[in-house]
Amino acid sequence: MATGRTDPQRRERILAATLDHIAEEGVAGVSHRKIATRAAVPLGSMTYHFTGIDDLLREAFALFAGHIVAVFERHLGGVEGPEQAREAVTTLIHTLSEGPQRDLILTQELYTLAARRPEYRELTRAWMRRSRDLLEQHFEPDTARQLDALIEGLTLHRALDVEPHGRELTSQAVKRITTAA
Amino acid sequence: MATGRTDPQRRERILAATLDHIAEEGVAGVSHRKIATRAAVPLGSMTYHFTGIDDLLREAFALFAGHIVAVFERHLGGVEGPEQAREAVTTLIHTLSEGPQRDLILTQELYTLAARRPEYRELTRAWMRRSRDLLEQHFEPDTARQLDALIEGLTLHRALDVEPHGRELTSQAVKRITTAA
Repeated sequence: MATGRTDPQRRERILAATLDHIAEEGVAGVSHRKIATRAAVPLGSMTYHFTGIDDLLREAFALFAGHIVAVFERHLGGVEGPEQAREAVTTLIHTLSEGPQRDLILTQELYTLAARRPEYRELTRAWMRRSRDLLEQHFEPDTARQLDALIEGLTLHRALDVEPHGRELTSQAVKRITTAA
Repeated sequence: MATGRTDPQRRERILAATLDHIAEEGVAGVSHRKIATRAAVPLGSMTYHFTGIDDLLREAFALFAGHIVAVFERHLGGVEGPEQAREAVTTLIHTLSEGPQRDLILTQELYTLAARRPEYRELTRAWMRRSRDLLEQHFEPDTARQLDALIEGLTLHRALDVEPHGRELTSQAVKRITTAA
């Protein structure tokens, strides 16, 4: 906090504190005062960096979406050919569904926000667009779209089940959805 | 409110008021006082019918899950053979994703609760079990499990996209996941 209002790290710190707060207590309780305290920045920084709570939530969730897209990228990066791509997607589903509780909670918080307030669906649309773009490097657009939905469903079901299904079932599902019927 | 504490409709009214409250304001704000006011029952009814907030949430979400399972049942009920079953599942996905905003919000609120607090995953597990049982009347268990995840993903993506995909894509995905690769 040595530098002034233009300290670039201050904005990052506010966004990280916002995501921490949402992961612990949900979107509902987000306020300038709470986030400023958590990020250890003056209250004035909040309105300097963000036009309001909606802008803050939008930027925080965009940062989070970027984090998940990076997980997609790490898995699909050096992959060559459909066989390797299917293997990578299967591993991705298991990584995401066994990953940090925090990521699962933040994903669901974003979806809940978008479910309640359609103006946030631009954010979910942009996120889906980015993951589909990565899948389209290996599969046709329609297949990529179906596969993206399958990744979502299998990840969610594995994460929220008390007896999650095994890798063989994921692998079979990925194979089926990427194979012309 | 003519009858006393054993009025069976009072319990139903409390559960309906709880779901209304969650749909509008989220799980976080649920309290005995708020729900009693909304349901127009004496505060004492809350502790008479439910052991606490967790019990109230559990029963309310179980009621909601029953409502969605009934939508599955209506679609898959009189269906004969895999072709008809695939058609019914395709229609189900479009019905769910174009259905009341309230159902979408309540689903996401439940998932968010289960993401944050693993003790609620018994509820999501039971719900998945019921929908898979219905699908297993038409498909093998592994296929039913994959199809259930696909239904989840396609429904969610259609509901949260600003340009939802068309029926043809859903139909193709259902066909693929239910056909041996």
